[in-house]
Amino acid sequence: MTHAQDSQGEIVETKYYNMPSYEKFVLASGAELEELKIAYETYGALNEKRDNAVLICHALSGDAHAAGYHKGDKKAGWWDVMIGPGKAFDTNKYFVICSNIIGGCKGSSGPNSVNPKTKKPYGLSFPLVTIGDMVNAQKKLIDFLEIDKLLSVCGGSMGGMQALQWAVSYPKHIHSCIPVATTYKHSAQQIAFDEVGRQAIMADPAWQGGDYYEKTHPSAGLAVARMVGHITYMSNDSMEQKFGRTMKTEKLGYGFSTEYEIEGYLRYRGDSFVKRFDANSYLYITKAMDHFDLQEDKKLHQAFKGVKTRFLVIAFSSDWLYPASQSKEIVKALKMNGIDVTYCEIRSDYGHDAFLLKSEEETKLIKHFLDNTHKVIERNR
Amino acid sequence: MTHAQDSQGEIVETKYYNMPSYEKFVLASGAELEELKIAYETYGALNEKRDNAVLICHALSGDAHAAGYHKGDKKAGWWDVMIGPGKAFDTNKYFVICSNIIGGCKGSSGPNSVNPKTKKPYGLSFPLVTIGDMVNAQKKLIDFLEIDKLLSVCGGSMGGMQALQWAVSYPKHIHSCIPVATTYKHSAQQIAFDEVGRQAIMADPAWQGGDYYEKTHPSAGLAVARMVGHITYMSNDSMEQKFGRTMKTEKLGYGFSTEYEIEGYLRYRGDSFVKRFDANSYLYITKAMDHFDLQEDKKLHQAFKGVKTRFLVIAFSSDWLYPASQSKEIVKALKMNGIDVTYCEIRSDYGHDAFLLKSEEETKLIKHFLDNTHKVIERNR
Repeated sequence: MTHAQDSQGEIVETKYYNMPSYEKFVLASGAELEELKIAYETYGALNEKRDNAVLICHALSGDAHAAGYHKGDKKAGWWDVMIGPGKAFDTNKYFVICSNIIGGCKGSSGPNSVNPKTKKPYGLSFPLVTIGDMVNAQKKLIDFLEIDKLLSVCGGSMGGMQALQWAVSYPKHIHSCIPVATTYKHSAQQIAFDEVGRQAIMADPAWQGGDYYEKTHPSAGLAVARMVGHITYMSNDSMEQKFGRTMKTEKLGYGFSTEYEIEGYLRYRGDSFVKRFDANSYLYITKAMDHFDLQEDKKLHQAFKGVKTRFLVIAFSSDWLYPASQSKEIVKALKMNGIDVTYCEIRSDYGHDAFLLKSEEETKLIKHFLDNTHKVIERNR
Repeated sequence: MTHAQDSQGEIVETKYYNMPSYEKFVLASGAELEELKIAYETYGALNEKRDNAVLICHALSGDAHAAGYHKGDKKAGWWDVMIGPGKAFDTNKYFVICSNIIGGCKGSSGPNSVNPKTKKPYGLSFPLVTIGDMVNAQKKLIDFLEIDKLLSVCGGSMGGMQALQWAVSYPKHIHSCIPVATTYKHSAQQIAFDEVGRQAIMADPAWQGGDYYEKTHPSAGLAVARMVGHITYMSNDSMEQKFGRTMKTEKLGYGFSTEYEIEGYLRYRGDSFVKRFDANSYLYITKAMDHFDLQEDKKLHQAFKGVKTRFLVIAFSSDWLYPASQSKEIVKALKMNGIDVTYCEIRSDYGHDAFLLKSEEETKLIKHFLDNTHKVIERNR
């Protein structure tokens, strides 16, 4: 197996899939990409039957580097707590794949990619992408890896939207689906928070209509967008417990510099984000989430017609960005189609962020669900 | 009565109090203001006993114009639904006063006032003010109006903080207090939302460290701050009911212009706010709210020691910015001091905004509470 070495150690590296030059990638908007590049990583080994592959879909600010360490790095991938030998996604058993979404800025085609026609970064001339487009690109990668049917597709937050979209777009190519802390459509409030982030970026004069790659980047705007995001990722309780009114300074400063720990935390999060993320990608990805609507003009249960996939739907009690009520609507719609679905609302104080954190409960739920899915496959063979 | 004419018609005008030149106004920070101007309006007539005066305190973006119409205006004051003949604050019975807070930008001394020393707008050289400072300035106005003891002080949101501060700072000068949709201290999440707004303003290059009065104003940053605010003022449900995923355009635009009604609403709110509000005042006022902490290092009930004021505490069920739980803590602390307090959580879908809207329930609660307060005064006379 070409990917077998990854399971031996913790050092991993990002690989790249390039769409053959005789193909075109057509997006939901009708726009076409002549070049398509997908950054991805794999952990564990694909078995001979090629039926142990699990696709992990990342959230807004994630990337292909979900687990293990890049050479020289001290920080593991974004979901290393869940992916590895003996972990929820047990790489002794499963072949785990994670790819960077298109529209992103971490190696896959996106607004910061070079437009083959102009030899300059696309900027806003990169076509808008949808969650469906992201999933179609992932399907190309899975085809390239010669996997006909994924054991599971799992993701949290926007990753969960992709997982749901997989079940709807490619019902014959996935055995199971694990949407975590997610929704089937963005609500007005979810759109509103995204829109504020976009407005903060586009209000930054450095944004320059998206044409800033060879100049100063709109860091101030992107930092504000990220700060707004971080408020929504934490619960009121966790913020209160972690920061409360604790001061960074000894006494009130009577000025506008950082006084409270929560201010320092938000500023730090904003400042560190701009070093690793592209402002245009933030616009594209949030727009893809806002456009996401599995229901469209029909009843939600009609969206899942024909889906045979097994589901494990996970929500977190204190998540107010993607509240459990939205997950329950997914569960109800699946049940109405007679689909095998397990729902679990995990008690947590960590708000939306909980889906990224180590959780014994989540680990066990996923571990058993994957094992059972594999057993069902064996039984039906 | 000098103010009697206001009760006759709906046309009102803003008046100004100027601190005598032989006085200085000392702030909590120790800074001094040599000039102090307070914009205020009054509705109804002060009775002979001078015991029917009610002070209304406004929220972040409010002003002295709480009721009636300015000559030529088509829009009434911000709480006209509650103040007027026969209304909650019945101007046939009560003399209602509303003044613009110091630090504001609607006629009272604030960062956009002219610094007498430099003859230029203060900008950030205006000293930081606290909720306590705002209340001290209001006390000067009340003294000027020759009112020894207010029948009541009422306010919603930041206005409620001022009302609470009145009870603590001047317990002998108010008979009753009506804090609405408010808190006794800003939580980490409340500070966080304010901080994002401030960062959006200060990230705008036009802000220029607050020295922009003769140049371009930081409108883009202020608009983003206001957009964040508006999300917190509405409930998830009311946003969903009012906007949901309704589009402004016929189909998805595959671009970043306004597509959803909620986006249009936020942009409109942001754009209209910058025409009427000063960015520096936004910084000063949010900072005053963040610094607000009646509890400080003690137990909350200790903060109300010595307070004899009657209280009516009102919260709204869907308010997640100043949730009912915070009001209940105030009620508990008051009860622990044996203070006469009525608590009411009004069921509403409108989130924090509910406090500004017409409400039969709120009207009746306040009307009866004021009448009873007046009866108690008569009885004790």
